[in-house]
Amino acid sequence: MEEREISKAVIKRLPRYYRYLGEIMESGVERISSGELSDRMHVTASQIRQDLNNFGGFGQQGYGYNVAHLYEEIGKILGLDKKYNMIIIGGGNLGQALANYVSFEKRGFVIKGIFDVNPVLKGLSVRGIQIYMMEDLEDFIREQDIQIATLTLPKSKAAETAELLVRYGIKAIWNFAHVDLQVPEDVLVENVHLSESLMQLSYNINRYEKEHS
Amino acid sequence: MEEREISKAVIKRLPRYYRYLGEIMESGVERISSGELSDRMHVTASQIRQDLNNFGGFGQQGYGYNVAHLYEEIGKILGLDKKYNMIIIGGGNLGQALANYVSFEKRGFVIKGIFDVNPVLKGLSVRGIQIYMMEDLEDFIREQDIQIATLTLPKSKAAETAELLVRYGIKAIWNFAHVDLQVPEDVLVENVHLSESLMQLSYNINRYEKEHS
Repeated sequence: MEEREISKAVIKRLPRYYRYLGEIMESGVERISSGELSDRMHVTASQIRQDLNNFGGFGQQGYGYNVAHLYEEIGKILGLDKKYNMIIIGGGNLGQALANYVSFEKRGFVIKGIFDVNPVLKGLSVRGIQIYMMEDLEDFIREQDIQIATLTLPKSKAAETAELLVRYGIKAIWNFAHVDLQVPEDVLVENVHLSESLMQLSYNINRYEKEHS
Repeated sequence: MEEREISKAVIKRLPRYYRYLGEIMESGVERISSGELSDRMHVTASQIRQDLNNFGGFGQQGYGYNVAHLYEEIGKILGLDKKYNMIIIGGGNLGQALANYVSFEKRGFVIKGIFDVNPVLKGLSVRGIQIYMMEDLEDFIREQDIQIATLTLPKSKAAETAELLVRYGIKAIWNFAHVDLQVPEDVLVENVHLSESLMQLSYNINRYEKEHS
């Protein structure tokens, strides 16, 4: 496949294509036109054609897309043809919730361990994933070849823990703490700022009320 | 303040301004220039001026922004000067994690109750927030004047529950289920699709490896 510069907006839409194509594939459909995909996804057919053209265009005029092929190719672009060893820092409710998501593992994100400072949690496990103490973190990251660390700590602990993670060689952090982590350029951070998402909702509630009052 | 059409991209950036300004205010700083704000936020000063000009521009040339005023105004735009009664549907780890976030309440999102189908959870509470059974949902929404419902159910249950919520008068859904809810036009949905965020991370890991191999 050709390598081209793909816009961030398109990349952000790819997981949604991937999800729909996965569902369509499971329902037994082998080919789909951009028009049908458009109906299902509530996106214009021209947007779909444009987006998918970024990857060389998998469709043939009048013949539609091969669902399985397109699903696989988008998976590859998203790096889902590989396995990632992952840890979760923070064994609280959020950490446990994430450990319980079996769908991450199906996509190749294998949770190898959970880390916490609370000795009460030591040796317990969530869905078979053991909880370790922070003093074991460095060795664990090296021995288990961990690529992704998920940070579910409070804001006050997140910065120092991110520093540790970087020192121990982690290159990708999935951050749920409500803070922008300061990390070297070669460390990737993907943020899930829950309260920012909630503020988008309150913004929209108010805008809607203003427009309809 | 003047009402103008503000781009979605600007709105998405506002919570981050709000967070930084809150921290700056707490640290006792009263005025800040776009240059200083730019250094802290790692955003260009011209981007900051442009973004904030959308709201009539709170800064004065050579004098900087009044931090408290700007914080308050952005809060108003985001609808954070009001209170929202919220419920959480799903009393599992994720629902409990969300119920434990005290910061939501500080922003005006008051969690009134948690709902689940599991009778074992009936009457338990999380941080003083009681867990109710789904058969109480309709009355609760009406009596407690609930505006926002948070959906932390598995995909398989989310669609039917969203239908119930709409029937009971909910106009805003904060959706954590990995599915696009089909709701009437006047119902707002804000999605948190965790696995899509994780896919952005794996995409970036792979892009980085390709660029540096």
